Amino acid sequence: MTYDFWYWPGIPGRGEFVRIALEAGGIAYRERGREDGADVWAKRDSYSRTPPFAPPWLDNGELVIAQTANILMFLGERHGLAPDDVKGRFWTSQLMLTIMDVTAEAHDTHHPVDASAYYDDQKAEAKRAATVFREQRIPKFLDHFTKALGGAEYFGGDRWSYADTGFFVLMSGLNHAFPRRMVALSGDYPTVFTHWDRIAALPELRDYFASDRCLPFGEGIFRYYPELDGEG
Amino acid sequence: MTYDFWYWPGIPGRGEFVRIALEAGGIAYRERGREDGADVWAKRDSYSRTPPFAPPWLDNGELVIAQTANILMFLGERHGLAPDDVKGRFWTSQLMLTIMDVTAEAHDTHHPVDASAYYDDQKAEAKRAATVFREQRIPKFLDHFTKALGGAEYFGGDRWSYADTGFFVLMSGLNHAFPRRMVALSGDYPTVFTHWDRIAALPELRDYFASDRCLPFGEGIFRYYPELDGEG
Repeated sequence: MTYDFWYWPGIPGRGEFVRIALEAGGIAYRERGREDGADVWAKRDSYSRTPPFAPPWLDNGELVIAQTANILMFLGERHGLAPDDVKGRFWTSQLMLTIMDVTAEAHDTHHPVDASAYYDDQKAEAKRAATVFREQRIPKFLDHFTKALGGAEYFGGDRWSYADTGFFVLMSGLNHAFPRRMVALSGDYPTVFTHWDRIAALPELRDYFASDRCLPFGEGIFRYYPELDGEG
Repeated sequence: MTYDFWYWPGIPGRGEFVRIALEAGGIAYRERGREDGADVWAKRDSYSRTPPFAPPWLDNGELVIAQTANILMFLGERHGLAPDDVKGRFWTSQLMLTIMDVTAEAHDTHHPVDASAYYDDQKAEAKRAATVFREQRIPKFLDHFTKALGGAEYFGGDRWSYADTGFFVLMSGLNHAFPRRMVALSGDYPTVFTHWDRIAALPELRDYFASDRCLPFGEGIFRYYPELDGEG
């Protein structure tokens, strides 16, 4: 059974958290919207039951599942991408939701007052929001993930889960958007920076990283504006 | 078995989404932080495994579960507050996550650039963010929930779930923060306004609404500032 995976073309975006889990898990999927040029909004509006609010969503003909962390909990359960005991299931989901919270905050640094307007129309507000995010929020989150990992190799223990691959995407995104800040913080949070490297080296992801399915960050959630990284 | 439910004292906040589900489900819980004055941050920092990033969280001695939508999925599964088939489980969770997205956006209207600073220090930015939220975002969300409900009595069919009680909290919060706007929209979205009334009338919630456990909205996520509701 192949999943249709719907997301905006051209950017990794929130879809990347799902995509990397599909790839790491060796789960067959077809990238819709990006590869075939299908109209994402038209497809969304075609669902009469369990409609998504926005992409990403999965559709296998029987199930239509949206909301990034929710899709991942489903995949985790069905394809063994997370522990299967109660504690492990909800712990993995909890971490993923916090990862998505950081992601939303990272987005809001460049679009703090109007998500549908241009960055240039909210640069002053963005500068202020980015300063708070950079100085206060990133350290808080890195501290949390350090504690969450504890002395383990992976968040759930001895095997990677979708929270680990999601964390990889988050760290990569933060590093894209705030490279100067992340370098400055790397010495204070060695555990999570080592974890980022560990996931980057997973054999299950080698083919994906080398493929053209793996897009660079660009004009999506995680954006690089030097002035938001504390320069100038 | 009684749950310890940890949340900030004095406000409904994000905790309210969990609290109303506990109440509607007749699930025994002890309100920590609010009732006993226990130190929420100190307790958080005491967890060595599966630490919460922030309240709310549940703790029953064996499990510590944080993230509002995650707590609710757990309660839904364990206490029958959601459908138990795969489609129904993930649909309910999907809706709840969208409810939490709207909630975060509602919060960010009064704190668009610095969540740790005063509203008075970001009034101009707030006014702009609130205009976008009020004019563009609320209608989009009400439209989505109208479609999500379809012709059914409840989001999951013929019985309420935690997504319905969560939706009630969301509508009540929006109505507290944007009363003028919500009245103006009520004629365009009769399905969801009727649904709000339906949940308000659930017999399972009558005692709760009459109790002093049910706090009014105040200085939390949903705040009433007339200027953010389009006045003046």
